[in-house]
Amino acid sequence: MPSIQDVAHHANVGIATVSRVLSGKGYVSEETRKRVMESIEALNYVPNGLARNLLNSHTHTVAVIVPDISNPFFSTFVNEVECCLRKQGYKSLLCNSVGEQNNEKVYLGLLERSLVDGVITASHLLDNRYYARLNLPIVSLDYALSDEIPMVCTDHTMGGRRAAELLVKAGCRHALQFRDSISIVLKARAEAGEESAAPEDFPYTRRHIEFERVIREAGIEYDEYIIQWDTFGVSAFAEIVQDAFRRFPGVDGVMATDILALQYMKLALQQGKRVPQELKIVAYDGTYLTDLCYPKVSTITQQIPEMAQKSVDLLLKRIAGEPIGNKRVVLPVKVTDWT
Amino acid sequence: MPSIQDVAHHANVGIATVSRVLSGKGYVSEETRKRVMESIEALNYVPNGLARNLLNSHTHTVAVIVPDISNPFFSTFVNEVECCLRKQGYKSLLCNSVGEQNNEKVYLGLLERSLVDGVITASHLLDNRYYARLNLPIVSLDYALSDEIPMVCTDHTMGGRRAAELLVKAGCRHALQFRDSISIVLKARAEAGEESAAPEDFPYTRRHIEFERVIREAGIEYDEYIIQWDTFGVSAFAEIVQDAFRRFPGVDGVMATDILALQYMKLALQQGKRVPQELKIVAYDGTYLTDLCYPKVSTITQQIPEMAQKSVDLLLKRIAGEPIGNKRVVLPVKVTDWT
Repeated sequence: MPSIQDVAHHANVGIATVSRVLSGKGYVSEETRKRVMESIEALNYVPNGLARNLLNSHTHTVAVIVPDISNPFFSTFVNEVECCLRKQGYKSLLCNSVGEQNNEKVYLGLLERSLVDGVITASHLLDNRYYARLNLPIVSLDYALSDEIPMVCTDHTMGGRRAAELLVKAGCRHALQFRDSISIVLKARAEAGEESAAPEDFPYTRRHIEFERVIREAGIEYDEYIIQWDTFGVSAFAEIVQDAFRRFPGVDGVMATDILALQYMKLALQQGKRVPQELKIVAYDGTYLTDLCYPKVSTITQQIPEMAQKSVDLLLKRIAGEPIGNKRVVLPVKVTDWT
Repeated sequence: MPSIQDVAHHANVGIATVSRVLSGKGYVSEETRKRVMESIEALNYVPNGLARNLLNSHTHTVAVIVPDISNPFFSTFVNEVECCLRKQGYKSLLCNSVGEQNNEKVYLGLLERSLVDGVITASHLLDNRYYARLNLPIVSLDYALSDEIPMVCTDHTMGGRRAAELLVKAGCRHALQFRDSISIVLKARAEAGEESAAPEDFPYTRRHIEFERVIREAGIEYDEYIIQWDTFGVSAFAEIVQDAFRRFPGVDGVMATDILALQYMKLALQQGKRVPQELKIVAYDGTYLTDLCYPKVSTITQQIPEMAQKSVDLLLKRIAGEPIGNKRVVLPVKVTDWT
């Protein structure tokens, strides 16, 4: 825990100056004030115990970090977390890291000083050490930050298998999946000697491995389309889908996350393909989006309300200092087919 | 501004006891501690200037309040606000009021003690006086809280007119719009002698008035379906759409917000209707959802990025204490038709 001395030293000013900046009393030039604030940020300094003590016993506030709140999976998750927390008398502060690692780092620094009781993070952008620094109860969604930090995730091995089986059973001859480049990125980082998470820390990647395995085992032609690992957003996905259409014209079975899946279906329908007769689409996530489209897509549904409930349960136990038996909660998927 | 004396009096304890609760030092029974905390909540007491002073000059944090973050309009707005704020060195804390008035009240109390620099609210649930109490810079989206509080909104009169004109031009003979019951609710409140906002404080209601006017003027059969004013969520909308289908079977032109519009289209397609040949749908909002569906719907698009940018610009001016010339920013809609 850095001290006021550390801040003074880092900013190359006296302790009295730091104190003046903190109290807001007495003259400090704008330039010096800025330097001191930057040192406070850099060292992750919490001014003193008072601010935390003042409110610590009653903030009843939890921070929820997601990469992209405009994505329906995350917006639904946050909505559910909020509902669960509210029932327990807690409020949620949402941190939208918008796919930028830097932004997540900024938030973690902010939270340290923001008097929240704990953190639920569904963001996968940073190395675990940033979270370790937080010194707050944390629950992670779909990312194994450390053995100590509880994690809630979906049984993605089962999810990938069921998705593949749907296509096999439907008689598909050429399957395509969209996957992100996280494994490739992490491998490159490791090879460059950077401290980095391992692919197995990200349970969601298992769906892709299992999907490929089952498809190949069934003797079905297999292709994959690799997406930049931190890509979100409908317009980016529209281009990706068009490119995939060009590159893999013979595909008759697709697994993709909801927005990609619906973009793919739209393009297929525009080109006169009959869905699902000529093209079977499995939407992975099964958010409300898949309830809005016609024809019906098949879904591998992550049980977002249960994930939210479990995340909140675990976090509140952590906050209360109660022991947690099972730090790895794996929830089953739900499957719906085209009928 | 309530003092520590007020809290002590309200909780029926001595000032020293309140001080002990605040500092977390010294013994206070759990029951007394709880009572003091409740008084702090009830009086909206900010412990002392210190906590605010400590961080006031550098929280660089803005709270964003929306009714339902799982709704794509609000999730997109929040995403954009976050992006604009980040570019200015600000972070956003999101408060999801989830359609419950009480929750919004809780958040406003929380924010008073949470050291944010300002508030952008897109929530329409409360009376203005709660916001007036906040004593923070505020910008409101689509809700005229007071003459002093800047508001950003869409030109909904134009939106309603253009939507109706699309249907008139397409030769529709029977138009239906979905609208919420806010006008009815507010009228009932006023009649019951409750302090309440006026319908004209909610610019979004203008679209409905103008839509009806233009449709009727064109001699087209007009119907409307009134929805409980605080209804959100896909499953609720599915039932509403089915009910609307039963009640108004001859409809060949519909205006509804995005999710409702897509639900309506889905049901029509399921029933074998040809869209858009036999049924013209205008989706009001034009979020990314309307980019995912096929056949294409017509959209009245609210310019969410511009609304976010304007909201942030106005709020930062307020925070900086700069004068604001025009406190009412009205942005035009964009229109796309079925071609």
